[in-house]
Amino acid sequence: MRRRTGRRPGNPDTRAAILEAARAAFAERGFDAASIRSIAAAAQVDPALVHHYFGSKDQLFLAAMEAPVDPREVLPKVLTGDRERVGERLVRTFLGVWDSPAGAAGLALLRSAVSNEWTARLVREFLTTQVLRRVLDHLDIDPAELPLRGSLVASQLVGLAMMRYVVRLEPVASAAPETLVATIGPTVQRYLTGDLST
Amino acid sequence: MRRRTGRRPGNPDTRAAILEAARAAFAERGFDAASIRSIAAAAQVDPALVHHYFGSKDQLFLAAMEAPVDPREVLPKVLTGDRERVGERLVRTFLGVWDSPAGAAGLALLRSAVSNEWTARLVREFLTTQVLRRVLDHLDIDPAELPLRGSLVASQLVGLAMMRYVVRLEPVASAAPETLVATIGPTVQRYLTGDLST
Repeated sequence: MRRRTGRRPGNPDTRAAILEAARAAFAERGFDAASIRSIAAAAQVDPALVHHYFGSKDQLFLAAMEAPVDPREVLPKVLTGDRERVGERLVRTFLGVWDSPAGAAGLALLRSAVSNEWTARLVREFLTTQVLRRVLDHLDIDPAELPLRGSLVASQLVGLAMMRYVVRLEPVASAAPETLVATIGPTVQRYLTGDLST
Repeated sequence: MRRRTGRRPGNPDTRAAILEAARAAFAERGFDAASIRSIAAAAQVDPALVHHYFGSKDQLFLAAMEAPVDPREVLPKVLTGDRERVGERLVRTFLGVWDSPAGAAGLALLRSAVSNEWTARLVREFLTTQVLRRVLDHLDIDPAELPLRGSLVASQLVGLAMMRYVVRLEPVASAAPETLVATIGPTVQRYLTGDLST
């Protein structure tokens, strides 16, 4: 492994090189197969420096894809509590993030995923490894059903973001969050815990 | 109104000029306010030529936004029949269009709407004037509830297209259409005819 002595810790170029190598690795090989070691090698830095800058592989991934939120912070609030209301809590939390300053980053990510295959892959890895796995840890869902349930939830929530923030179709665009919680919450609940009758 | 004598009927430039003027008019002023007369004036042609090339204002609009399908052909099949299965029929028809060669045009439109405010406006006008109004004509829905019901349906279907064709999240990406009809159909049904408890 080479290491450029010209790159000092704290050097913005070094951070940028690590993030670029991480984006490429996560998009090409997926979250699980991409190692910190290989990313460090591609960025020509010591793996310890990657850990120093970004912490865990999870954190490096969130930084590389410019994730608007850290699911480890948000998801426990959604998943803890009455199991029959997890759909409502998920829609409420989702809208809370999108209606906050983080929403601009979410919109940028959505725009990029639609036009760029690599970003689409990162979003896919994000949903699978950062969100759905944690849902499995908290809710009592048959692991065999989780991928379908999870991707159905994603279809409804990403579509909600598209209509509310991109296409801006009324009245969804300016509806009070609780209107959407009441109408879309039961959909998400059914996708997560209901009978899908497939 | 000026008319360029250099523009002959059948001239591709004339068609392109009309379509460009139509896109601008529909995006800026909306479908209802944009007239064939004003579009013809902007394109510097006679209104009769616009009718000759494109037929009705509906047809001009579909051509201008490069709509993958004509809702007047597709919707009657969806809306006619057992009212309690309209959700399933809508999902089945939607997937049939997207899985057909027309899907490429749909994907191009989706990509453009996400990055381009004008296309987003055209998609909004399309959903409102070409799709939702016709749903109202066929289903017995309270007109006051139609906009919310329609935009909820749009959120689920556009999100389905995003996950299946853009982000390609499995298993939604390669699921058999009937799996998605069975799981997402009831959502669309509830949005259209069910109790939304708002």
